[in-house]
Amino acid sequence: MLTRIDHVGIACRDLAERISFYESAFGLTVVSREVNEAQGVREAMLHVADGPAGSSYVQLLEPLGPDTPVGRFMARRGEGLHHVGYGVADVSAALAELGASGVRLIDERPRHGSMGAAIAFLHPAGVGGVLTELVQAAPR
Amino acid sequence: MLTRIDHVGIACRDLAERISFYESAFGLTVVSREVNEAQGVREAMLHVADGPAGSSYVQLLEPLGPDTPVGRFMARRGEGLHHVGYGVADVSAALAELGASGVRLIDERPRHGSMGAAIAFLHPAGVGGVLTELVQAAPR
Repeated sequence: MLTRIDHVGIACRDLAERISFYESAFGLTVVSREVNEAQGVREAMLHVADGPAGSSYVQLLEPLGPDTPVGRFMARRGEGLHHVGYGVADVSAALAELGASGVRLIDERPRHGSMGAAIAFLHPAGVGGVLTELVQAAPR
Repeated sequence: MLTRIDHVGIACRDLAERISFYESAFGLTVVSREVNEAQGVREAMLHVADGPAGSSYVQLLEPLGPDTPVGRFMARRGEGLHHVGYGVADVSAALAELGASGVRLIDERPRHGSMGAAIAFLHPAGVGGVLTELVQAAPR
């Protein structure tokens, strides 16, 4: 079902400062910046690698305020790893299969993610404490 | 410097149970099991994808006891995402470059990681709260 590690999602207080660090220390390049009001984040995607099933990224996430999912996460845990996103060929089919096997979902159907992807989150309580995202990348 | 997302490292209480979940829910396959006494973990690598610069994995980590790095992590935070490992071509060169640019290191020189890799950890305090591993995979 999983075709690649699409991205790691990293919560940070200051997006611009964190981007600068990943650019200067690791040589990564920003390929997309977005504000996602529905998810309450300002974000950047930094390209890491290309593979046969798609690319992989570091996703940096700055909460738009304290009363957002990432804002609440940071109040509890501080900056750091927030979630992992895996590539799937068909996010609707993957959700149906996981739901049928009893995995607890956050999203019953796909919603809009970064860079035009269709995405869905699985509940961390159903995945051993890991907030897990499924990513069907937009057609190239 | 970073050639791929090599793996996400996930802390769990019961390795066998967590492996079963990743196999049945996501269709992943275990390609390596090891006990790393130096790091205080029992671990499994589950293959996700192959790419031009190497493969990527989910690494499941069960602490050998409470007084180990992963044991202490789980006492504070419970099960979940523990670290991210990125592929590099030359871990010694990467460490030298990062050290020279002032990034705080845990390992001044490479040590032995999973599947024969040469690895080194960067301190989370230097990487925005993310425990970050560099992985130079063993020659195939």
